[in-house]
Amino acid sequence: MQSPICLVSKAAEFAARRHTGETRKARPNEPYINHLAEVANILAEVTDGADAELVAAGWLHDTVEDELATRVELKAEFGDRIAALVDEVTDDMSLPQAKRRQKQVEDAPHKSPDAKLIKIADKISNICARIHANPSPEQRTELAAYTMWAEDVVAGCRGGNARLDAKFDETVRAAKSAF
Amino acid sequence: MQSPICLVSKAAEFAARRHTGETRKARPNEPYINHLAEVANILAEVTDGADAELVAAGWLHDTVEDELATRVELKAEFGDRIAALVDEVTDDMSLPQAKRRQKQVEDAPHKSPDAKLIKIADKISNICARIHANPSPEQRTELAAYTMWAEDVVAGCRGGNARLDAKFDETVRAAKSAF
Repeated sequence: MQSPICLVSKAAEFAARRHTGETRKARPNEPYINHLAEVANILAEVTDGADAELVAAGWLHDTVEDELATRVELKAEFGDRIAALVDEVTDDMSLPQAKRRQKQVEDAPHKSPDAKLIKIADKISNICARIHANPSPEQRTELAAYTMWAEDVVAGCRGGNARLDAKFDETVRAAKSAF
Repeated sequence: MQSPICLVSKAAEFAARRHTGETRKARPNEPYINHLAEVANILAEVTDGADAELVAAGWLHDTVEDELATRVELKAEFGDRIAALVDEVTDDMSLPQAKRRQKQVEDAPHKSPDAKLIKIADKISNICARIHANPSPEQRTELAAYTMWAEDVVAGCRGGNARLDAKFDETVRAAKSAF
């Protein structure tokens, strides 16, 4: 059994290596790892750092979706629970975006409690990335569309952690004042 | 008092944000945060994750040197010990590189035990980044020069953690076989 700090540190380095070269969709000047650091930190904060596997899964949550690791590999490196959590929040990228977004809304209520926490943290980070200081009309439209969709997904994920739910609501308020 | 996982997660996100836009000197296709993730993970591994403040300092160790944070700010955000550790491993960038390198060799033996651990982890990560699959003559020369200097610095830092010393020696062997 690895110590909590070792597990999280290993997950962070693994994610950093694998996502090298990727940038954030909404902030192309930021490396993708910034998104993962945000998600992991949100999860740590709202759970008072009590669950290292959840935080590690936050770092790793896009590795399978982005085809940078397999579930088998994550299981071998990080154990069953983390591999299963990442798998649960992995979209089928062979589907078109509209279908994937619809599926996230439909599937959200059926996810495990911990996968729901990752989903909400992911949406908080992604909404924040779409809030720009001097947005173009396209950026406003994108922020509005993303936020409304995120609200639909998160509606099916709420109730597991009151601080996380409040943080999401606060993020949505900030986004709406920037539409 | 923050939990160990919260402290490390906060340090990682802080470092990721601040170093946005920087790339590794020896691997310009990698974001700088990859180096910090490596250093933090080395420190976690060789101490079995027993010291979250040391690992957090690993994430933050270049923020003051790169003028992305001040010691005062680090103290306010992360506490006295982390701010002092980062300060101890911060070079005076107003000096020319040759002078800075000489100063690191001279100062190393007088650093605190924990600052010495960060120094060694930093050198391991930086040597590894200079080992290329098909090195150009310039890359071989740079690897040789960096490694020899790193050996001089680390000579003044050894003895605090046998696993870290062994990891450094192994890295130097790998580098020398690639000169």
